[in-house]
Amino acid sequence: MSSKPYKLASLETRSEPTLVTIPPCGRGGKKVVFGGPGVVVVAGPCSVESTEIMELTAAAIKKAGGRIIRAGAFKPRTSPYAFQGLGAQGLRRLAQLREKTGLPFITEVMDTRDVEMVAEVADVVQIGTRNMQNFSLLKAVGRTHTPVLLKRGLANTIEEWLMSAEYIMANGNPNVILCERGIRTYERATRNTLDLNAVPVLKTLTHLPVAVDPSHGTGYTHLVRPMARAAVACGADVIMVEIHPEPAKAISDGQQTQDFAEFAKMMTELKAVARAIGRKM
Amino acid sequence: MSSKPYKLASLETRSEPTLVTIPPCGRGGKKVVFGGPGVVVVAGPCSVESTEIMELTAAAIKKAGGRIIRAGAFKPRTSPYAFQGLGAQGLRRLAQLREKTGLPFITEVMDTRDVEMVAEVADVVQIGTRNMQNFSLLKAVGRTHTPVLLKRGLANTIEEWLMSAEYIMANGNPNVILCERGIRTYERATRNTLDLNAVPVLKTLTHLPVAVDPSHGTGYTHLVRPMARAAVACGADVIMVEIHPEPAKAISDGQQTQDFAEFAKMMTELKAVARAIGRKM
Amino acid sequence: MSSKPYKLASLETRSEPTLVTIPPCGRGGKKVVFGGPGVVVVAGPCSVESTEIMELTAAAIKKAGGRIIRAGAFKPRTSPYAFQGLGAQGLRRLAQLREKTGLPFITEVMDTRDVEMVAEVADVVQIGTRNMQNFSLLKAVGRTHTPVLLKRGLANTIEEWLMSAEYIMANGNPNVILCERGIRTYERATRNTLDLNAVPVLKTLTHLPVAVDPSHGTGYTHLVRPMARAAVACGADVIMVEIHPEPAKAISDGQQTQDFAEFAKMMTELKAVARAIGRKM
Amino acid sequence: MSSKPYKLASLETRSEPTLVTIPPCGRGGKKVVFGGPGVVVVAGPCSVESTEIMELTAAAIKKAGGRIIRAGAFKPRTSPYAFQGLGAQGLRRLAQLREKTGLPFITEVMDTRDVEMVAEVADVVQIGTRNMQNFSLLKAVGRTHTPVLLKRGLANTIEEWLMSAEYIMANGNPNVILCERGIRTYERATRNTLDLNAVPVLKTLTHLPVAVDPSHGTGYTHLVRPMARAAVACGADVIMVEIHPEPAKAISDGQQTQDFAEFAKMMTELKAVARAIGRKM
Repeated sequence: MSSKPYKLASLETRSEPTLVTIPPCGRGGKKVVFGGPGVVVVAGPCSVESTEIMELTAAAIKKAGGRIIRAGAFKPRTSPYAFQGLGAQGLRRLAQLREKTGLPFITEVMDTRDVEMVAEVADVVQIGTRNMQNFSLLKAVGRTHTPVLLKRGLANTIEEWLMSAEYIMANGNPNVILCERGIRTYERATRNTLDLNAVPVLKTLTHLPVAVDPSHGTGYTHLVRPMARAAVACGADVIMVEIHPEPAKAISDGQQTQDFAEFAKMMTELKAVARAIGRKM
Repeated sequence: MSSKPYKLASLETRSEPTLVTIPPCGRGGKKVVFGGPGVVVVAGPCSVESTEIMELTAAAIKKAGGRIIRAGAFKPRTSPYAFQGLGAQGLRRLAQLREKTGLPFITEVMDTRDVEMVAEVADVVQIGTRNMQNFSLLKAVGRTHTPVLLKRGLANTIEEWLMSAEYIMANGNPNVILCERGIRTYERATRNTLDLNAVPVLKTLTHLPVAVDPSHGTGYTHLVRPMARAAVACGADVIMVEIHPEPAKAISDGQQTQDFAEFAKMMTELKAVARAIGRKM
Repeated sequence: MSSKPYKLASLETRSEPTLVTIPPCGRGGKKVVFGGPGVVVVAGPCSVESTEIMELTAAAIKKAGGRIIRAGAFKPRTSPYAFQGLGAQGLRRLAQLREKTGLPFITEVMDTRDVEMVAEVADVVQIGTRNMQNFSLLKAVGRTHTPVLLKRGLANTIEEWLMSAEYIMANGNPNVILCERGIRTYERATRNTLDLNAVPVLKTLTHLPVAVDPSHGTGYTHLVRPMARAAVACGADVIMVEIHPEPAKAISDGQQTQDFAEFAKMMTELKAVARAIGRKM
Repeated sequence: MSSKPYKLASLETRSEPTLVTIPPCGRGGKKVVFGGPGVVVVAGPCSVESTEIMELTAAAIKKAGGRIIRAGAFKPRTSPYAFQGLGAQGLRRLAQLREKTGLPFITEVMDTRDVEMVAEVADVVQIGTRNMQNFSLLKAVGRTHTPVLLKRGLANTIEEWLMSAEYIMANGNPNVILCERGIRTYERATRNTLDLNAVPVLKTLTHLPVAVDPSHGTGYTHLVRPMARAAVACGADVIMVEIHPEPAKAISDGQQTQDFAEFAKMMTELKAVARAIGRKM
């Protein structure tokens, strides 16, 4: 009956928004709902950093009104000689941080053999842009019950992206958040071309929550704030950004990372824009 | 001294915003300023239509707070067999409408031989996307004093775009407005990929006003409103959209054209977003 | 000392061509060398088909001068509802075919958990375009001794591709063949844009053998023959095509698959072009 | 009756190849036919250079078997501050060279006001990549009888390109040669991505001759020779390259220009490839 190649992800199958919910966790934690009337902000360093830096970052997120922290334990790196992440140790550090701060966390999984371990501890499992069509990995996270943040592939169409969500859902996991993070075009003034058109397009095709990552999407810190405002203005449910107490000293992605002052400024602006379009934050 | 290949267009040469001003014209006309604190909305049909339709459209624009009308007299069409526009007759119709309504107009010029005629009567001359690197045409409009709206080429970089503005400025005309209207990518869910990243990027490179055309940029009416909101949120000075009393009956571009109700709804939303970021409209 | 971000894959590290060799196998099998003076042709159906079809295909390959068969046991499919391949049964069928015909085979691996099984039986393991930056998978095949055919990602640069080869080599496996298979562009007349420029570019950067797949690269059978000729003319070491006794009845990819007559015609043409540029086949 | 949006350019309207013919001219000149069994090679500097350099180049072309010279009198340059060509003086120099050497010439026209002047003296008029959809210019050259070499736009589809040819033909000029010169993609290892797929695609859609320009298509001298071989191998009727006695001293485009030795080597290779596929040169 559907005219689309995907079924479970389609608005034709389910007309109300899917709410992806994380129950309260750790000390003083609160429930987080993706896809509801509130805009959710996710922030954190690219890679899991020292305990001190992670705690400083968690405090800055909570202070500014962010709801969840992001950080990579397993890192996909173009070069085999680049830092590959802290692995299981990074996961433990994130779990301890959650216990202490009440802040749930999102982290990436890259290998089918790690899915069980990561899904058990993380609040949201991220599938990175390079793995959007790693169908073995999609099936594996589809067999867990942990929410999945599915990043759009570097050069994948919106239809292919929804088909990848369908892989996860068809394997039993309905908790998928789609995350636009920039596509590859000829333009060189930005690292990628953040495709905000995807936000309203997705809203006409699917009931799944839509996130936008302007840090990876643009590649430069000074572009993150205006593009985050634009993302909220066109309907994004979630904004995910990279922050660090000293971006220049970040293990990775420093040139696209906000410091805490810039992050706080962005949060104030996003609240105003959210209010202007009848949403809260 | 500048590290950029363009000089006159560069923020390094001039640090305050360029204000492109249209003096009051026709009955009850008001001054229009592009690039100042106010966001300016330009609207109108793709092609010049009947006098009745043009007057209805002008009334709808004024009622909703738009400041200037757009319509094509000379039309660039992919097919030689498609309607090529009303030409000089279309220009006369636009001039009469301005006299009667006080609404200035933007219209495209495509041929160096027509530049003098069009620049004399139009308030703003548009260089279309297919002519962004038609250097003969750029030189010709550069030798007039009429403001120029320079659309970004289908697959041109921001740097090339600024170089084209430089052609106009180097020939004596400083009144250039840059207009993002979607770039060509692999994505097929939208007709083009509206590249809003260009807005904050341009703001760090140039003092020229920046316009966004979400009608051509997305190709579908239902995407125009959210993307116009996003354009204002990330800093656009001008929003240009296609409107028509009955889009399905428009001579051209009906599938991306708003009717008056949709346009009015957009205007209300844009005012709210502009206010949220400290601008007016 | 190298100015490139990859080392083992670089011509600066090793100046002679890498020869990837498959020893004789099965009944009457002959040694196959990729990267030497001879151009090697790989052919076969998209998916492993019935024993009868596989035997007919093997015979057609041998008759026309092809040296190795390709067929997918594990299939990466955009839709979770599409045929996912025969899996382990498909591998057994390919091994039996090799035993009977002496034709070695190339087949894809998609999951780190399957690498050991596939690498043990296949003569060449393929990493598909969607997994070019599946770093876990690259590391896993890098720890085997089986030659790897590494397809270029849909929208990956040549430099990123060489970095992925570096992942395999840095983990201990020097036997990498690079395979151009079309990149994603705005053009819609072809399914992908086969980027033959990559062939001479790679020849100036790396010592690894270069393959070209004009079936996936163009997406249409009638374009395969001319583009295969062009690939040989600009220096490809390997040509890989999809063939089937009745393309219209193929399990997958029928519209880009040659029948045996077309394949034989192509082989005659490729031999003539190879000779014209001083190579053999 | 045609299912295509273009008519005169379509194979459905005319099934035999269009032969674009230049009659013998100057001292010892010979007829040149584009689109027949012979592959035609066009060569020359980017811009018209000194009389001495032009004569040296003409001699090198004739010696190696080239049939026509190319050089720009009016130059489209991204920057208004770059050399804009010799204009009418360049045209006179080309006409004198033809008189003396018998070599006809191709040169670009950029302005509708110059069309009459250029079309009167040039043997083939070029429409450059940035003007492929300059419809005023297409109409103007369509009203002359001079053959037109129509370069593909930087990011135009093959269908749009044929529509532009249709503009010329619908205005009365059937002598159109299509020239592939590289499209804009994300890849940065080449200046553009020469899309050879366009050659066999065009051969199934149109009766017009097809040229390939590997100099602009790749942007680097060392890639010109292999890609020229590939172009002949997949069916190109014309190869157009940039040559200069001392590329490093060329007024423009030196990094993609062959010297005479490289050009002669290419010519020998192209003859061998042409012969291998049953054509002559």
